[in-house]
Amino acid sequence: MQAEIVTIGTELLLGEIVDTNAAWIAQRLATIGLNHYYTTTVGDNLARITEVLRHALARSEVVITTGGLGPTVDDVTREAVAAATERPLVLDESLLEEIACFFARRQAPMTENNRKQACLPQGARVIHNPVGTAPAFAVEHQGHVVISLPGVPHEMKHLMETEVIPYLRERFGLHSVIKSRVLRTCGIGESVIDSKIADLMRLTNPTVGTAAHPGQTDVRITAKAESLEEALALIAPVEAELRARLGDYVYGVDQESLSDVVSRLLAQHGLRLALADMATQGELAQWLAGSAQSAMAFAGATVLAGIISLRVTLDLDEALLAQYGCPSQPVADAAAQAARRLHGADLGLALIGPEDPSAPDAPPVYCSLATAHGVIAAPPRRGRSGPAGRGWLMHLALDLVRRHLLGLPIG
Amino acid sequence: MQAEIVTIGTELLLGEIVDTNAAWIAQRLATIGLNHYYTTTVGDNLARITEVLRHALARSEVVITTGGLGPTVDDVTREAVAAATERPLVLDESLLEEIACFFARRQAPMTENNRKQACLPQGARVIHNPVGTAPAFAVEHQGHVVISLPGVPHEMKHLMETEVIPYLRERFGLHSVIKSRVLRTCGIGESVIDSKIADLMRLTNPTVGTAAHPGQTDVRITAKAESLEEALALIAPVEAELRARLGDYVYGVDQESLSDVVSRLLAQHGLRLALADMATQGELAQWLAGSAQSAMAFAGATVLAGIISLRVTLDLDEALLAQYGCPSQPVADAAAQAARRLHGADLGLALIGPEDPSAPDAPPVYCSLATAHGVIAAPPRRGRSGPAGRGWLMHLALDLVRRHLLGLPIG
Repeated sequence: MQAEIVTIGTELLLGEIVDTNAAWIAQRLATIGLNHYYTTTVGDNLARITEVLRHALARSEVVITTGGLGPTVDDVTREAVAAATERPLVLDESLLEEIACFFARRQAPMTENNRKQACLPQGARVIHNPVGTAPAFAVEHQGHVVISLPGVPHEMKHLMETEVIPYLRERFGLHSVIKSRVLRTCGIGESVIDSKIADLMRLTNPTVGTAAHPGQTDVRITAKAESLEEALALIAPVEAELRARLGDYVYGVDQESLSDVVSRLLAQHGLRLALADMATQGELAQWLAGSAQSAMAFAGATVLAGIISLRVTLDLDEALLAQYGCPSQPVADAAAQAARRLHGADLGLALIGPEDPSAPDAPPVYCSLATAHGVIAAPPRRGRSGPAGRGWLMHLALDLVRRHLLGLPIG
Repeated sequence: MQAEIVTIGTELLLGEIVDTNAAWIAQRLATIGLNHYYTTTVGDNLARITEVLRHALARSEVVITTGGLGPTVDDVTREAVAAATERPLVLDESLLEEIACFFARRQAPMTENNRKQACLPQGARVIHNPVGTAPAFAVEHQGHVVISLPGVPHEMKHLMETEVIPYLRERFGLHSVIKSRVLRTCGIGESVIDSKIADLMRLTNPTVGTAAHPGQTDVRITAKAESLEEALALIAPVEAELRARLGDYVYGVDQESLSDVVSRLLAQHGLRLALADMATQGELAQWLAGSAQSAMAFAGATVLAGIISLRVTLDLDEALLAQYGCPSQPVADAAAQAARRLHGADLGLALIGPEDPSAPDAPPVYCSLATAHGVIAAPPRRGRSGPAGRGWLMHLALDLVRRHLLGLPIG
């Protein structure tokens, strides 16, 4: 059994918009044990879409298309599926009524073009679309099936979850489930993790694998089973063993980011955090402010453009700057205290780095957290420049806050 | 004549990394008049890559592959091209020597696997890769050609520019040139632009089209000609006419962002700009700090999390806040002056908006610029939430600075 995906749209082909549907569908298909081997992108051209669909249907049991179901003359997926499966398009009266109702509810005019959307390949199974006007459909052809979904991601996802996955399970007897659980870690390198869990990485069901990102490493546990319950039961003891070995380096699970976790902890403690940032150019503020519960947790940020800013903006002691220089731990400590005071916050977090982190002999970045009871510091980290370097620093800084709030050891 | 692209890699197929190569190649091929109709993504599997290449070579004169040229067992593009073009792989001694030199220069050990990279399909034309170890190559087969490039973007781009484009021009007699020029505008809506230039949008060579983005609209002029000089000559009078009609709404050309333009103007004037930001959560600071010449132009930012921050951080007058409320124009004016003073800057720019911009009755966002000679303001703008809303506000704010520095009328 294999599936393939055909994404339709000239704007995708030319890279004017980036396709995220194919990867999402692939991951969703994997969860029911359906492998996906090809993705083809083709523009809004009837002959070429038809050719691609014929070829896909010949080699794959399941073909999923996205896009080209709208009302304009560019939208020719319906016609292409009809041609590739050798049947005419026919008007579906009940579908036409449904589309008319959709417009009536929104008090929007229905155009003649929208009628086109009610025309489907003869014998198609209608997949009703409660979240948009483009009806989706499935057509069986010589034992294989082509399923056409809208290109709008939230419509496509809704229809995949509620209609397509149940249909595929039933139609092809796909009763296995693939379930993943991700443990998210920071403050520990991928190679150290590998050495701690090497034996678990040789398991076959569930499997355990790692993936490194700037500042954090994911440990993924993936189980294949006959039901979700059985998959979760396979995952649970391995997750427990991994947590025992990785300890407090695990900060969250699945989609949780470190900024989500820290915002939640701050909100739980009723504390607000301010930043003094001379290392990420405001990116840390944006990351924290963009996370859930940030409204209760984020007190503001001072983004410093250089050493002059430190003196003027944070009103740091001249003697301190003269004695220790910048960056240095005492200056980071003072900046954290200044951020706390300036923004009227409970906690002040400072990242103080060199003006040019890309210089070969650039000094390290210092990270301090000021509380009502004093200042704590993370181990200084030699900077890397660019987005990955900022990713490392943002995790270093927020992990210091996480460890403080949870009473965990630092460094 | 048509071209197609085959991107190779299981990590692409599964969406673990986003492919940016295909769109870049498509745009580059368009500049020499070569149309691109299909992109296929396939995993690291010899049989499936071979099948995809056979199919692609049968329908397209030019097939460009990316990826699968590394030294590991997963890298099977060489084998697949050999199979699809019905010839053996042979060791190229001069290529082997070149790879050995690459490792010697870097004082890195060359492994047995790297020998594999010197094996190419018989009769392949070697495309030397001075920027990496993976050699690229072209194979002609029944009058069509498959060109295999590495997947690492900077290597692929270098080889496309220096080797592949000249080869394709020569081999297929592609002497036409497609050249685009983009005029970037802000402060004027797409529909207003359309009404001003409707007649020019009906031209056929060059063509003129618009594309709206949050806060700014691009006007693209595209000419097709026998040479670059001729294309530029076609573009010039249309650009002049567009500039005459759009006037000072045009802030830059091609890849220039408004933050690049403002940073450059600030550096030219020897002025440094500070921000008081209660509307973009630090995104404006990051945008400005990330642009060229920002080191001379950006003096720092105060990111405000709410009204409490205004009072504490910026030390704003209680009476002012009580009289006008927040957000309001007088508070934005005072915040701009405070940012200028706090960061020791020449100019202070403030964006002061509601705490919850997504509320249906949210008040507008106020934007002020403080200079040594007083404060000027942009017209207040009713906020939109989300990334697009922040895009609008960032353009509004930086356009105020641009207009001030160029002595243009405001609002």
